[in-house]
Amino acid sequence: MKKSIGSRTLVYPTPVFMVGTYDKAGKPNVMTAAWGGICCSKPPCVAVSLRKARYSYDNLVERKAFTVNIASENYVKEADYFGIASGRNKDKFAATGLSPVKSDLVDAPFIKEFPFALECKLLHTIEIGVHVQFIGEIVDIKADEDVLNANGVPDIDLVKPILFAPEMQAYYGVGNFLGKAFSIGKEI
Amino acid sequence: MKKSIGSRTLVYPTPVFMVGTYDKAGKPNVMTAAWGGICCSKPPCVAVSLRKARYSYDNLVERKAFTVNIASENYVKEADYFGIASGRNKDKFAATGLSPVKSDLVDAPFIKEFPFALECKLLHTIEIGVHVQFIGEIVDIKADEDVLNANGVPDIDLVKPILFAPEMQAYYGVGNFLGKAFSIGKEI
Repeated sequence: MKKSIGSRTLVYPTPVFMVGTYDKAGKPNVMTAAWGGICCSKPPCVAVSLRKARYSYDNLVERKAFTVNIASENYVKEADYFGIASGRNKDKFAATGLSPVKSDLVDAPFIKEFPFALECKLLHTIEIGVHVQFIGEIVDIKADEDVLNANGVPDIDLVKPILFAPEMQAYYGVGNFLGKAFSIGKEI
Repeated sequence: MKKSIGSRTLVYPTPVFMVGTYDKAGKPNVMTAAWGGICCSKPPCVAVSLRKARYSYDNLVERKAFTVNIASENYVKEADYFGIASGRNKDKFAATGLSPVKSDLVDAPFIKEFPFALECKLLHTIEIGVHVQFIGEIVDIKADEDVLNANGVPDIDLVKPILFAPEMQAYYGVGNFLGKAFSIGKEI
């Protein structure tokens, strides 16, 4: 028998997206967002939700572009900092010593030290409530060669991404391989 | 120097959402979706993207309700099966021996054996491309008492959710605790 625990924003896992943007003056900024995910295969799209009060919100509306950076777990402190501090009064790249790189395809910066980044053009803006959802078309992904597997894909065991557990307010790493998708279910 | 690896639907991690719906005849169905995530804090909302060809697509459009079920890793085969088989010609509950429970709040079933489920009312439908995104308001969460922590929240270490690695087509478990959110970043 299940128990009602109320209306909560709880799923496991949520991602830890570091959203890269430029402000009006061209200063690069990055903020952490856990409300998001892939939302379409063709065109390849990713969604990320921001509150209007966020400094990155105006950047994204004006530049119509953003990057989604995936950090390795050794950058968990930086990932957390990017969610706490505001680009309004801090230069988060200077504070962390991380390096913004201008995308050659979209008007947004990605983070040099993180294993891969999605370069996105804004396609749709959906007002939901306190969050506004931005849907971006993924025009390219830039990845470090040393995390690519034999198929040219960033390997999750090399990337070592961070997961977020909402309500528990905690970060976790990736655990054991459990099985191949579109395969192990065939045993049923 | 990063390398271009092309436009791909790749982020780590993506969730493994089991979407529960009823069809016209009232038959419960469930399908697996990795394209989704929380998208708003107030109202609490979750997004999930489906292709129109999916049997669940019509169910969701007609019933304007769905559940998002989070499986434990011991159900990884069932989770995979729910993404392979179609409710059009299979009774997936009968095939897996899992039990649909009618939600008392929304017109959709949740899965008894999984640790928790979000009960959602359809709020927005966004046509993106080959996928249509459904945004549901989370009206309640039903959870097993034995996965709740001292704060009454499903504990990620007890839930043992499944992660999906797109492009690698693989499932993973949750790994080590890395740090407290809104906390460890203050050291910077």
